[in-house]
Amino acid sequence: MKTSKGFASDNYSGTHPKILEAIQKANLGHASAYGNDEYTAKAVKKFKEHFGKDVDVYFVYNGTGANVLGLKTVTESFNSIICAETAHLNVDECCAPEKFTGCKLLTVPTNDGKISVEKLKHHVYGFGDQHHAQPKVISITQPTELGTLYTLKEVKELVDYAHKNNMLLHVDGARLSNAAASLNKSLKEITFDLGVDVLSFGGTKNGMMFGEAVIFRKKELSRDFAFIRKQGMQLASKMRFISSQFEELLSNDLWLKNAQHSNKMAKTLADEVKNIPKIKITQKVEASGVFAIVPKQYVPNLQEEYFFYVWNEQISEVRWMCSFDTTEDDIRDFVALLKKIVK
Amino acid sequence: MKTSKGFASDNYSGTHPKILEAIQKANLGHASAYGNDEYTAKAVKKFKEHFGKDVDVYFVYNGTGANVLGLKTVTESFNSIICAETAHLNVDECCAPEKFTGCKLLTVPTNDGKISVEKLKHHVYGFGDQHHAQPKVISITQPTELGTLYTLKEVKELVDYAHKNNMLLHVDGARLSNAAASLNKSLKEITFDLGVDVLSFGGTKNGMMFGEAVIFRKKELSRDFAFIRKQGMQLASKMRFISSQFEELLSNDLWLKNAQHSNKMAKTLADEVKNIPKIKITQKVEASGVFAIVPKQYVPNLQEEYFFYVWNEQISEVRWMCSFDTTEDDIRDFVALLKKIVK
Amino acid sequence: MKTSKGFASDNYSGTHPKILEAIQKANLGHASAYGNDEYTAKAVKKFKEHFGKDVDVYFVYNGTGANVLGLKTVTESFNSIICAETAHLNVDECCAPEKFTGCKLLTVPTNDGKISVEKLKHHVYGFGDQHHAQPKVISITQPTELGTLYTLKEVKELVDYAHKNNMLLHVDGARLSNAAASLNKSLKEITFDLGVDVLSFGGTKNGMMFGEAVIFRKKELSRDFAFIRKQGMQLASKMRFISSQFEELLSNDLWLKNAQHSNKMAKTLADEVKNIPKIKITQKVEASGVFAIVPKQYVPNLQEEYFFYVWNEQISEVRWMCSFDTTEDDIRDFVALLKKIVK
Amino acid sequence: MKTSKGFASDNYSGTHPKILEAIQKANLGHASAYGNDEYTAKAVKKFKEHFGKDVDVYFVYNGTGANVLGLKTVTESFNSIICAETAHLNVDECCAPEKFTGCKLLTVPTNDGKISVEKLKHHVYGFGDQHHAQPKVISITQPTELGTLYTLKEVKELVDYAHKNNMLLHVDGARLSNAAASLNKSLKEITFDLGVDVLSFGGTKNGMMFGEAVIFRKKELSRDFAFIRKQGMQLASKMRFISSQFEELLSNDLWLKNAQHSNKMAKTLADEVKNIPKIKITQKVEASGVFAIVPKQYVPNLQEEYFFYVWNEQISEVRWMCSFDTTEDDIRDFVALLKKIVK
Repeated sequence: MKTSKGFASDNYSGTHPKILEAIQKANLGHASAYGNDEYTAKAVKKFKEHFGKDVDVYFVYNGTGANVLGLKTVTESFNSIICAETAHLNVDECCAPEKFTGCKLLTVPTNDGKISVEKLKHHVYGFGDQHHAQPKVISITQPTELGTLYTLKEVKELVDYAHKNNMLLHVDGARLSNAAASLNKSLKEITFDLGVDVLSFGGTKNGMMFGEAVIFRKKELSRDFAFIRKQGMQLASKMRFISSQFEELLSNDLWLKNAQHSNKMAKTLADEVKNIPKIKITQKVEASGVFAIVPKQYVPNLQEEYFFYVWNEQISEVRWMCSFDTTEDDIRDFVALLKKIVK
Repeated sequence: MKTSKGFASDNYSGTHPKILEAIQKANLGHASAYGNDEYTAKAVKKFKEHFGKDVDVYFVYNGTGANVLGLKTVTESFNSIICAETAHLNVDECCAPEKFTGCKLLTVPTNDGKISVEKLKHHVYGFGDQHHAQPKVISITQPTELGTLYTLKEVKELVDYAHKNNMLLHVDGARLSNAAASLNKSLKEITFDLGVDVLSFGGTKNGMMFGEAVIFRKKELSRDFAFIRKQGMQLASKMRFISSQFEELLSNDLWLKNAQHSNKMAKTLADEVKNIPKIKITQKVEASGVFAIVPKQYVPNLQEEYFFYVWNEQISEVRWMCSFDTTEDDIRDFVALLKKIVK
Repeated sequence: MKTSKGFASDNYSGTHPKILEAIQKANLGHASAYGNDEYTAKAVKKFKEHFGKDVDVYFVYNGTGANVLGLKTVTESFNSIICAETAHLNVDECCAPEKFTGCKLLTVPTNDGKISVEKLKHHVYGFGDQHHAQPKVISITQPTELGTLYTLKEVKELVDYAHKNNMLLHVDGARLSNAAASLNKSLKEITFDLGVDVLSFGGTKNGMMFGEAVIFRKKELSRDFAFIRKQGMQLASKMRFISSQFEELLSNDLWLKNAQHSNKMAKTLADEVKNIPKIKITQKVEASGVFAIVPKQYVPNLQEEYFFYVWNEQISEVRWMCSFDTTEDDIRDFVALLKKIVK
Repeated sequence: MKTSKGFASDNYSGTHPKILEAIQKANLGHASAYGNDEYTAKAVKKFKEHFGKDVDVYFVYNGTGANVLGLKTVTESFNSIICAETAHLNVDECCAPEKFTGCKLLTVPTNDGKISVEKLKHHVYGFGDQHHAQPKVISITQPTELGTLYTLKEVKELVDYAHKNNMLLHVDGARLSNAAASLNKSLKEITFDLGVDVLSFGGTKNGMMFGEAVIFRKKELSRDFAFIRKQGMQLASKMRFISSQFEELLSNDLWLKNAQHSNKMAKTLADEVKNIPKIKITQKVEASGVFAIVPKQYVPNLQEEYFFYVWNEQISEVRWMCSFDTTEDDIRDFVALLKKIVK
């Protein structure tokens, strides 16, 4: 089978060897199903070390599940959820949020994947008006789908605005580790220390085989999650195989090393291509993704060797994602080909 | 960690070594996400070998997902689904079917987990009456939640009755391999050859780490499944890690050997306990589960060493499930303890 | 047009003349829409007189809307609702409860339309078990769909049992006035005085053109109802035309007179037919409906002149409903025909 | 009670006398419930005269019900629906569309309430991509929520674009009569002759007490509507009281006269105020609504006498709606007060 690495997505990569090893170690005898096992208890302990002792954490299968179930837990069916037009929630989840929560997504146009109080506040009105979907959650992605980062100050402003309006802040952190690595902060400092209420914390895109976590700032926010997870078809029976992965990821800084590496690879890639005439980098490279305009005629040849997504057909903007297993050789070879093609 | 084996459930067991090996082998380089990879193509090919070339097969994370998404695909929100009162669908999925499909579950009382045309036909009426949930699916579990089996003739009668009424037959086959092993038939012979329309085929309870399949008798029945799976939060990004498990399970008769083994262990266990005075086996042992009445006073002591579920508190009926990794020693030790306790 | 009266249903009747007059009187100038008008304020005041000053009342279009929205307001999507197998909720609302609340209906077999703690308690278990739909509401119909009545003591027992289990009691009172008339009690005495939590109070079947009320025992229970009503498509813009009907119905004992009359007509009808050989009355006649077995061969001839429903095809049991406008002549003529046909 | 007329909304008005008379006439004896009556048959016939013989028409209670159920009938849960940011569907239905259909609303910014192929086509992509909500319906409001009109050519372009992409065109015609009156065309010419697929046709805002119609271009499109209406809690039992209103509305050009009148009153009002300094009319007055900027300081005094809505707080834009019962005196008095206040 073809196993060459490309830049399509960090979920094209496999499982980090240490995590695979952890899975193998967990494959011993019997363990209680549905999370009532020692592996899960240990993983939860790790989460509390990293995110704070008051958080309440649950494991699910995938990112869509994490986002949708986290949001369902803190909303009523008549609420609205405000997010960037580019949010995964809005663009890539095939109406899962609408179907499962009943809520309306209110979108905010954005050039860099980020939203701000200024940009979203026109959606926040009509409290108590029975005709009007009641605003309840602001959802941001950190880092954004465009590889950019919110500063801590920007997140704090959104949290404060949300709380002032009796709303909550949700963070889609499918790649949160990359944000922490880039901001040079702990996972807690960039989330619950700022007052974030609900967080999807990604494992799959940082070297896990599968598995994401939904983390609530405090128990009061998560009350019904267990039932919602089961009803949402996201309760794993052999839970230990998610938990053992998370325990490993959160041990010995593996989460950080993986994220630092993919961030560094993205920086390297950006540095290499930014001087190629005809290629124009379109977003700040703050995490593991590089967005660039590549003239349309060159794209097919490039895609023959390396799969990647065209992000914006109209302007021929492409996305190159780096992963924990991207190597400097991968980048050198790719850039060489790119230069050859566009020259 | 405590790793001793009990008889709680076949999802307390871990991953079969060969399947874990297959996962390791699949952990090589990059692969297209979301099922567009060679591992998935090969696994699908295996499914067609076992279930027939016209079937359409999709992989999901877990059994609840398989049941609910399969049913959603073939129903409208105003349909009813008929199943046994004891069906997993009805008892153990926390309203996931109702929430995601909108449909009503109509239940049929049963002593052995099985339903029949005779028992269910009072639910089949009111076609065209706008007040009445329109009957659309009969759902059975094979083997049943009580470890019993439908004969091929019994399944055929249900299929014929369903089709005669423009309804469909759904099979929850979380342990279908055990049924095939026990009936000494191929997977196809006990499902699509009989006209079954939609099937949940279980991997997790037969040695996989996670992963189930939804199989439709023909493409016409599955049309929108891909969207429903994504909206249902059951689309795995690193799909190869489900596919490679299934490919291995369906190769070299591993599915069959595992199932034959757990069936045999159940038979052995039943044979051992049936002569213990005070213990009364309550269901035919046709697959991998043994149901027995154990006088209430003995249960706690037994559960101290071996976890298992009390199925019916009232009559102190317990369930002992065997698994692919249950050994004769496990049974010998368990029976010895049981004898010691009840004597 | 054919305007002869039959015994099909109390919703085959038209609007009581006094209520039509009230509508006409309300048709003056402009009034604020959506319930923010003086007619609605006055109607709400009437409800508080009849049901208690602490109740919270809302108007909706129809009975299905009243039941479903009342239940949605007090449940989470993972709850179960226990009701009689014969409940309108279960049989005649085309999965509206399941679709809109997500909840599972757990049904209780019944010969007389009534359920009891004894009969339903096997459904009340599994609290806190994430796999299990959490029991939350017991729903009864008063009078039942079979024309029978719960005694006050029976309702109280259900309320107490519900509350003891942190559950609520819901009453489908589409014909509640008939119950009060028959029990010779006030509307409050048969509902909130007993601790009922949520009530659908019917107008349409007691002489209104359209309109039902959802009444909560106290404000704490109804918190989000306004949004749920709007989202549930049951918010009337020209609300005054529901409110003015209710105000009239609840004035000068009109609700009671109408109900007493239809009850009396049912008694009369039952008295007349009970001695006809071959006709067998099957349920106590405690409200406005009469259930009787009429040998199959006589039904078509009877239905040619008078429309009514065959309730149970198998045993040829029919339902005859009386209405506020049923006259003694109507009954005399009907009985005469019946006697002629069956003689 | 205060009955003075204002300009808040055409649903602040009462029932047209002729329609009230029709209701009274229908209040005779018994009639089959749920639409199986002669009044409904006659009303349906009227609809076929006005909209074409192939249409399939159903009556519901209100506008939200009409929109949501019409859309549910032609969508799957994973579809998207494209509409103007200002659409009632999007702004005033408290997530009813999302909750009941599961679909995502994709909105298009608009200054005049209208959308066009040019403006919306960026939402139409990703067909067959399982991650992406599949575009299925374009929904427009005619006349728009801002009192403007689509030309026939504009509607046709949207229809053609929709059909070319295997999508459908839905029209929210809560005030469709006003559009036909203003365009001087028949109801059919502005809808089904252009290829419109699903139409909400409003009664309430044109003189009815309550009642709206959902009309499908052809039977093939409406297949399951009867079940969806019941499940959607919009099936009226005493249907004759909606049907008789519609029959009257569609007879003797009452629908047209009412609409012409309210349109004319809006024109008159606009003509009167457009020359008042400080007042600025903001939208073309093509139907029954007038939108104008009234400096903030004058609004409260004006609202003391006449209720109306502030449409856009930021720029102090108000909406004045005329109704079938608005008189020239009403307008003269209102304008006089306005002049007095702003001078």
